[in-house]
Amino acid sequence: MIAPSTALIDRLLAEDVPYGDLTTHLLGIGDRAARIRFAARDEIVVAGVPVARELCRRVGAEITFSLDSGQRVGRGDPLLVAEGPAAGLHAAWKVCANVFESCCGIATRTRALVDAARSAAPGIGVFGTRKVFPGVKELAIEALEAGGALPHRLGLSETVLVFEQHTALLGGIEALVDAVPGLRRDACEKRVLAEVTRRDEALLLAAAGVDGLQFDKVPPSELAGIVAAVREVDQRIVLIAAGGITGTNAADYAATGVDGLASSWMYAGRPADIGVVIEPA
Amino acid sequence: MIAPSTALIDRLLAEDVPYGDLTTHLLGIGDRAARIRFAARDEIVVAGVPVARELCRRVGAEITFSLDSGQRVGRGDPLLVAEGPAAGLHAAWKVCANVFESCCGIATRTRALVDAARSAAPGIGVFGTRKVFPGVKELAIEALEAGGALPHRLGLSETVLVFEQHTALLGGIEALVDAVPGLRRDACEKRVLAEVTRRDEALLLAAAGVDGLQFDKVPPSELAGIVAAVREVDQRIVLIAAGGITGTNAADYAATGVDGLASSWMYAGRPADIGVVIEPA
Amino acid sequence: MIAPSTALIDRLLAEDVPYGDLTTHLLGIGDRAARIRFAARDEIVVAGVPVARELCRRVGAEITFSLDSGQRVGRGDPLLVAEGPAAGLHAAWKVCANVFESCCGIATRTRALVDAARSAAPGIGVFGTRKVFPGVKELAIEALEAGGALPHRLGLSETVLVFEQHTALLGGIEALVDAVPGLRRDACEKRVLAEVTRRDEALLLAAAGVDGLQFDKVPPSELAGIVAAVREVDQRIVLIAAGGITGTNAADYAATGVDGLASSWMYAGRPADIGVVIEPA
Amino acid sequence: MIAPSTALIDRLLAEDVPYGDLTTHLLGIGDRAARIRFAARDEIVVAGVPVARELCRRVGAEITFSLDSGQRVGRGDPLLVAEGPAAGLHAAWKVCANVFESCCGIATRTRALVDAARSAAPGIGVFGTRKVFPGVKELAIEALEAGGALPHRLGLSETVLVFEQHTALLGGIEALVDAVPGLRRDACEKRVLAEVTRRDEALLLAAAGVDGLQFDKVPPSELAGIVAAVREVDQRIVLIAAGGITGTNAADYAATGVDGLASSWMYAGRPADIGVVIEPA
Amino acid sequence: MIAPSTALIDRLLAEDVPYGDLTTHLLGIGDRAARIRFAARDEIVVAGVPVARELCRRVGAEITFSLDSGQRVGRGDPLLVAEGPAAGLHAAWKVCANVFESCCGIATRTRALVDAARSAAPGIGVFGTRKVFPGVKELAIEALEAGGALPHRLGLSETVLVFEQHTALLGGIEALVDAVPGLRRDACEKRVLAEVTRRDEALLLAAAGVDGLQFDKVPPSELAGIVAAVREVDQRIVLIAAGGITGTNAADYAATGVDGLASSWMYAGRPADIGVVIEPA
Amino acid sequence: MIAPSTALIDRLLAEDVPYGDLTTHLLGIGDRAARIRFAARDEIVVAGVPVARELCRRVGAEITFSLDSGQRVGRGDPLLVAEGPAAGLHAAWKVCANVFESCCGIATRTRALVDAARSAAPGIGVFGTRKVFPGVKELAIEALEAGGALPHRLGLSETVLVFEQHTALLGGIEALVDAVPGLRRDACEKRVLAEVTRRDEALLLAAAGVDGLQFDKVPPSELAGIVAAVREVDQRIVLIAAGGITGTNAADYAATGVDGLASSWMYAGRPADIGVVIEPA
Repeated sequence: MIAPSTALIDRLLAEDVPYGDLTTHLLGIGDRAARIRFAARDEIVVAGVPVARELCRRVGAEITFSLDSGQRVGRGDPLLVAEGPAAGLHAAWKVCANVFESCCGIATRTRALVDAARSAAPGIGVFGTRKVFPGVKELAIEALEAGGALPHRLGLSETVLVFEQHTALLGGIEALVDAVPGLRRDACEKRVLAEVTRRDEALLLAAAGVDGLQFDKVPPSELAGIVAAVREVDQRIVLIAAGGITGTNAADYAATGVDGLASSWMYAGRPADIGVVIEPA
Repeated sequence: MIAPSTALIDRLLAEDVPYGDLTTHLLGIGDRAARIRFAARDEIVVAGVPVARELCRRVGAEITFSLDSGQRVGRGDPLLVAEGPAAGLHAAWKVCANVFESCCGIATRTRALVDAARSAAPGIGVFGTRKVFPGVKELAIEALEAGGALPHRLGLSETVLVFEQHTALLGGIEALVDAVPGLRRDACEKRVLAEVTRRDEALLLAAAGVDGLQFDKVPPSELAGIVAAVREVDQRIVLIAAGGITGTNAADYAATGVDGLASSWMYAGRPADIGVVIEPA
Repeated sequence: MIAPSTALIDRLLAEDVPYGDLTTHLLGIGDRAARIRFAARDEIVVAGVPVARELCRRVGAEITFSLDSGQRVGRGDPLLVAEGPAAGLHAAWKVCANVFESCCGIATRTRALVDAARSAAPGIGVFGTRKVFPGVKELAIEALEAGGALPHRLGLSETVLVFEQHTALLGGIEALVDAVPGLRRDACEKRVLAEVTRRDEALLLAAAGVDGLQFDKVPPSELAGIVAAVREVDQRIVLIAAGGITGTNAADYAATGVDGLASSWMYAGRPADIGVVIEPA
Repeated sequence: MIAPSTALIDRLLAEDVPYGDLTTHLLGIGDRAARIRFAARDEIVVAGVPVARELCRRVGAEITFSLDSGQRVGRGDPLLVAEGPAAGLHAAWKVCANVFESCCGIATRTRALVDAARSAAPGIGVFGTRKVFPGVKELAIEALEAGGALPHRLGLSETVLVFEQHTALLGGIEALVDAVPGLRRDACEKRVLAEVTRRDEALLLAAAGVDGLQFDKVPPSELAGIVAAVREVDQRIVLIAAGGITGTNAADYAATGVDGLASSWMYAGRPADIGVVIEPA
Repeated sequence: MIAPSTALIDRLLAEDVPYGDLTTHLLGIGDRAARIRFAARDEIVVAGVPVARELCRRVGAEITFSLDSGQRVGRGDPLLVAEGPAAGLHAAWKVCANVFESCCGIATRTRALVDAARSAAPGIGVFGTRKVFPGVKELAIEALEAGGALPHRLGLSETVLVFEQHTALLGGIEALVDAVPGLRRDACEKRVLAEVTRRDEALLLAAAGVDGLQFDKVPPSELAGIVAAVREVDQRIVLIAAGGITGTNAADYAATGVDGLASSWMYAGRPADIGVVIEPA
Repeated sequence: MIAPSTALIDRLLAEDVPYGDLTTHLLGIGDRAARIRFAARDEIVVAGVPVARELCRRVGAEITFSLDSGQRVGRGDPLLVAEGPAAGLHAAWKVCANVFESCCGIATRTRALVDAARSAAPGIGVFGTRKVFPGVKELAIEALEAGGALPHRLGLSETVLVFEQHTALLGGIEALVDAVPGLRRDACEKRVLAEVTRRDEALLLAAAGVDGLQFDKVPPSELAGIVAAVREVDQRIVLIAAGGITGTNAADYAATGVDGLASSWMYAGRPADIGVVIEPA
């Protein structure tokens, strides 16, 4: 993430603190000079930093310390420290904490999945799917990259990936086989991929000339054999495993010989636990 | 959710399908009449319906069947069926699926937590905290209410809830005790609540006249005693348990005698599993 | 107001000066170094400062002096002084003046109403209703707080306030009486309030256990008696007078013994008179 | 107003009812079929109709009756009636009421000012200035036109109006006199206007060839003489009175012989009083 | 384009007709029933239809006839006919005309370039670059696809295309050669492309294993030889010509044997000439 | 352009680089200190500078050199130089280049048209019409003014310009003649203009008292005679030539004696050619 959009910063503040922190206002402490410190309560991979920094700046705080997204920290290590009037810090507190907790959670799980996969297949690609919490992909992708993975496809408009839901309208797998040369020609700058669940479909489409196949929910034990068979048809074909890949089974999937794993497992799960102290500066 | 904002619909489509589904376009199937059907693959509580309906309408589809948020469905039951040109249905497919999967997941967990809590304390309130994925509270709250809970506080601007992070700037617990009458007077329309972690603080603040206390991460066994002690000081005081409340321990917390539970457990977890079929209409 | 949203700043500039000040451009004076000075032409309470400051910054000016919202100033006193290229200052001039005039007008009337009310009842709460000019609540609430009041309810989603328009659908006052225990239980973190216009309704609902009552357009003379009667039913009940409360009658209403006054009187009225000088710097 | 922007509708709902009406939700009456009726409690000129209609539609209501902006109604006359689920009607209630009250207030005062002015000078133009509540000019202009006036200048970018604040940077009135021919040539499609407060300046600028003069806060008695004198210099010059023009003095100003009156008096003042009934349908 | 975003429709109307058509308003003809008809004044390829349709609907008009984007029409042929109140049609007139003129212009030039290229190489891909008028890619891509081409890359975030501007920071072409295997592995789902201008670089990178090369401003005569040489190194490599490709030289470039042409020529040029008639309905 | 809206900056970045430059990220060069330099490859008039500057700032770069919009530069001259991390510079590169190329193209053509027109008629006004690429008028107007012209009319809401499309609904040219006095009175602050194509209409409307006439697509040879004839009716009438005016025929049109030329020729045409170097800093 180069720089968060101002609309995102507006939206995050508007949904949590549209008119300031009423409690701070009523206690009359809004003008006091204060310091806020976000620290990890567990070993985590840091993410969300550019957004948290911009949130702090927007409420009038000065950042005196911050890590970069992607760094690993241990229990008690600070992520970001900022100083400013208490009204601003209290406004930014929970929004920043929420960003850190959600994003560090994603980054930490991503890192775990990447490490597991690469323990079995050092050069394997790990991709986060589009199945993020809808509406804030900006945050999820920053976290994903902080954790060492890449986004799978950003959306529907930029890649060619044929699903069963396309094939059904096209008239079946034979119709797709016939369509492959046209797809490859028309979208020559991109790889033409199709999702399959069965060995026979995989072999048929590999023979038809697709650039890649994505296997949906094929168990690792079965997948290894299909991978080998498909590679005999086309040595350069790109093979991706997807569907149900988690931190636990990533190594098994990686060991099947596929080129990459596509997963949404990292997006969902407990937020990271981040402690926040606000004190007089 | 009365009606999703058009900006939310714009945002959901823009982030997933800014320029249409390239695959559908290249296959030349965009104009074919098609039907999309979203169905539960597990027993779930439905949520996200108003958003999914509006997404389908925006892409030119007509909704021929839909449930309401809040209904329980079993494995295989349809949530929504729509018909229209394939280009529109393919554009709406994953966005709607993502909305359904995220929101039904929240609603289903919420329902479980509410049911668990009420098995121990039938009239207890269950509240979802602000710790949602940042940026799309609209979706999370719709799902929360579909699951039978209520939002805890929507944000910082509308309720009075004193945290340790406020007290530190005020000058400590004694300063807060002194401030309570003023808070109650100034914000007479609202309850004045404070978060505490210790029995002595709870008793001190109850005696000072706060309208309610929120206990953060106090184990149920310890909490029951504090609740009883505080109720002796003020019978009408509102007591909320918060921090680490899950579907598993909700009944234990409910049994402590508190009036309500505040949790963020329902927000994070596996998305519901929703199957999607697209076929010729 | 911690920090105005960038969307608000965009909107204010876009509606008044979408493509710069044509007159400045045609006169060829846009690059001249200039100073702008906003000063009170009457005794007023200042509001709108955070927005005016951000508007000046956005057009490339540097703020060399500014008061804080909430301060009282006398005739001729400066509110804000900024320096920069004339094109920027001319772009910001009327937008800032409009913000100051509208907001200082609200803040000054608010202060007058608060002072009048507290002359009769020193600890009384004063609340501004939701009846602001639609679409820019951000500005109105900043001004309200600058004048010493608090917002009544920010919107419909965060408080429980039963109106006749709800009761009509519920089936009448008896149905509401029956519903009160459920409301109190479900929304235990919030006060349950109802709006009433008659003594009998007030007594009925107080007996039913509502946390508060809001009296709509009940004359002070009549209200005092109702307040006393209701307090006999429940000593801790919160009582609010609303409907037609102005700077003139606020003391009378305050003297009835209610805990707070809810008014929209401060929002409407003449803008404050602010003089603006632009001169070479 | 041809059609309100969807962003305005989003904004109006988001600021008042971001997550639905909590009271309706807790009372469990959201699904009941209901009817809402907005009616005038005084004789007013109607405005805000396109926005209120769109708000009702957005929350799922069907409009069964509505007037057009610009119509006059008497006490008790309905403005708009709509039917739909109670949750939607309660969400739209106060937002629509606020729009009607603010806009009808402006339209009614505008109509009064226009009528007063035209009683003295039948063909005189009446113009509302830019001094509207900042941020929602869309609403104010709709109301202004409903009341029979026109906007003065929509903003700085589209007209040429030289203020003292320009002249100060240009180097004084003589410099302005020298600049007039250039302004007229460069902006030949537009009238070149200047604001003046004194007779000598008016005569000087009329002789210099400005297309029009705007007199700021010149009392009617004095203004009549200046108007006559200026017209002797240039019969076709456009003369506008501005600054402090109200419903009370509009006729006096109109009688001075100016071509138009520019006022902001209509924008500020009590909102119209609109009664709202919600009942079972 | 499945459905234009509501924000785009808002923006198009706001920039041209923020407060309605003043002339229509002053002439008092806004309520008259009218018909608007957009017709081609030349032979063109139609584009912009979904946006024009939505604009008409937004201003309250009913569409009685419209073509689809992508169709060819002759001189005088209608594109879209709509009926409604004159105020709405006048508001939509120029915005729709502008959309049609800009988009049909792009689509017509795109069609010409595609036809020229395919006359020399029937299966060649034609891609429109990112060099569109900044800020409204939605419109440009709809027009591009209507003309029979595809977008080249939608933006920087979704494809791998190494420019000289990357290589300079990496440390030169040798460093890039070393980096290629890693790029291919990490981004295995995508093709790895690099832009080159010279034969030696092309051969070096082809040998290094890039999936494709984009030749910038290499004259067709020279390019044909490079293409042949590169294909000897890797038969499956994707080769794209870019830089200065126009309707005139597209056939020459297509004849070089590349797989596709990337051009921005279609974006700039005279808008299509569209006649608009508004008449009583 | 005083300051670009943040929404424009958001939009420009979102459409080209929503999640950063993938190539830079994969090459691992994002953190390297780098310098970007935009330079003219032809003699051009500079425009777009405020937007390019803000884009660079948003991605974290510091501007070390920049020209102002409106300056002429020769081949090789730098427009803007900035330094910062490579990830930011790569994100800003094409967006800025696109802004510069589009805007400098407009400014350069505008300058040529202005110079041509003024070679024949030194004091003539040159106006750019509303026929810009729809959706980003902000950019086009900045460029237009940089090139020495002015916007014709910003939109429909602020000027009175009667087209044939109005007259058709009004009932014909005689009805328009009858309406002129009312238009002049009601909109006394503005010039009342009408578009005509024929001599008889021009004379009729001049006699009726319109303030100005806009001649649509009348050849210069014919126009000169009409201008002379109309001026005999009213010496002060403003006469504008429009429709098909280009850099080539501008002098001929200027020589007809009109006061101004309205053209859209400058908006369409080849973008300026801007070279961009990124190198280690």
